Amino acid sequence: MRLYGYWRSSATYRVRIALNLKQLHYSYVPVHLVKEGGGQHLAEYQKLNPAELVPTLVEEDGNVINQSLAIIEYLDEVYPELVSFLPVSPLAKAKVRTLVHDIACDIQPLANLRVLQYLNTTLQCSDSQQKNWSKHWIETGLKGIEQRLQSSAGRYCFGNEVSLADIYLVPQVYNALRFSLDLDNYPLIQLIYLNCNQLAAFIAAKPENQPDAE
Amino acid sequence: MRLYGYWRSSATYRVRIALNLKQLHYSYVPVHLVKEGGGQHLAEYQKLNPAELVPTLVEEDGNVINQSLAIIEYLDEVYPELVSFLPVSPLAKAKVRTLVHDIACDIQPLANLRVLQYLNTTLQCSDSQQKNWSKHWIETGLKGIEQRLQSSAGRYCFGNEVSLADIYLVPQVYNALRFSLDLDNYPLIQLIYLNCNQLAAFIAAKPENQPDAE
Repeated sequence: MRLYGYWRSSATYRVRIALNLKQLHYSYVPVHLVKEGGGQHLAEYQKLNPAELVPTLVEEDGNVINQSLAIIEYLDEVYPELVSFLPVSPLAKAKVRTLVHDIACDIQPLANLRVLQYLNTTLQCSDSQQKNWSKHWIETGLKGIEQRLQSSAGRYCFGNEVSLADIYLVPQVYNALRFSLDLDNYPLIQLIYLNCNQLAAFIAAKPENQPDAE
Repeated sequence: MRLYGYWRSSATYRVRIALNLKQLHYSYVPVHLVKEGGGQHLAEYQKLNPAELVPTLVEEDGNVINQSLAIIEYLDEVYPELVSFLPVSPLAKAKVRTLVHDIACDIQPLANLRVLQYLNTTLQCSDSQQKNWSKHWIETGLKGIEQRLQSSAGRYCFGNEVSLADIYLVPQVYNALRFSLDLDNYPLIQLIYLNCNQLAAFIAAKPENQPDAE
């Protein structure tokens, strides 16, 4: 299968981790989100993803799936071998999903490229206003997550098995570090980030280890 | 069970639709998001939801679940009777989830109350800048969704059965209409919105039909 993405896109990073955890082979098709107005807006890519965002997964038989979370839950269902991204009990599953949506809905979409571009271009925000914006939403989100983790974390976000929540947390923390966020305020998040990044699947998925890294 | 929410919150609206479709009885606990700095920030509520957002579902046995999507997927799993919010095939499920995340991740979080408050207070954006901001993200999102629906819609977002996608679409369209968005540019979305709003579960969930409506 083919994964269309961008090295520094959090959403692509999540799918890379998921594919690696499942040990699924894929070819990586870089879509440069900035150069020449952004490859995600080209007609050819727009056919694969009308939302003009990355990532997109295209299976060998031609099935096209957009949205990182839809892709990852699909992979988990179709390839149940090796690891499961969600616990079995409905309540435990809900707890993991809560952490996932804290990031997927309430942090990442607010501090991503297209929003910063709008702040910069349309609202003419200064560099420091843009930086404060990102930091504000990341800090607000991580504060709530740190509190949730007090009742769920073990070695990872939910006990001692890697789950969907870790697949979401690691790219978000990577992004937070780009904004020089001090992780000392989030000891559990910091610990889980370090633990995940000892695993081969997470290391291979890092932005700097992608062929399109700059 | 108890649902903590706010009449005009999209995320609460979704959960109300889901509870109604499953014909589950619940008591509704209003959390006023604006008055006196916002009830979601009070210590008592923060214990239920560290993210200080609505909704929160509290089950009779005391289980607490945050994040609308985690709540709704939980309800669907625990109460499989009457209707199922997701189709059976993994690929169909992924298609429905893509539509859900288009809204839950890429539209709603950008145009919600706390973001508009930040634009207003911290960035000192004018009323028209705030309105344009919301319209921009809603229009960008709905444009992609309208295109996706061309290959999935029947009477509802995904064929002729109500799914999770409709539970997300209706509150988003309701919100778009508050920003005077012209739905004529989105004929499938408009049609599905009208079809859903003929169903008792959707009518009873409307913001204006809640006890805390103003």
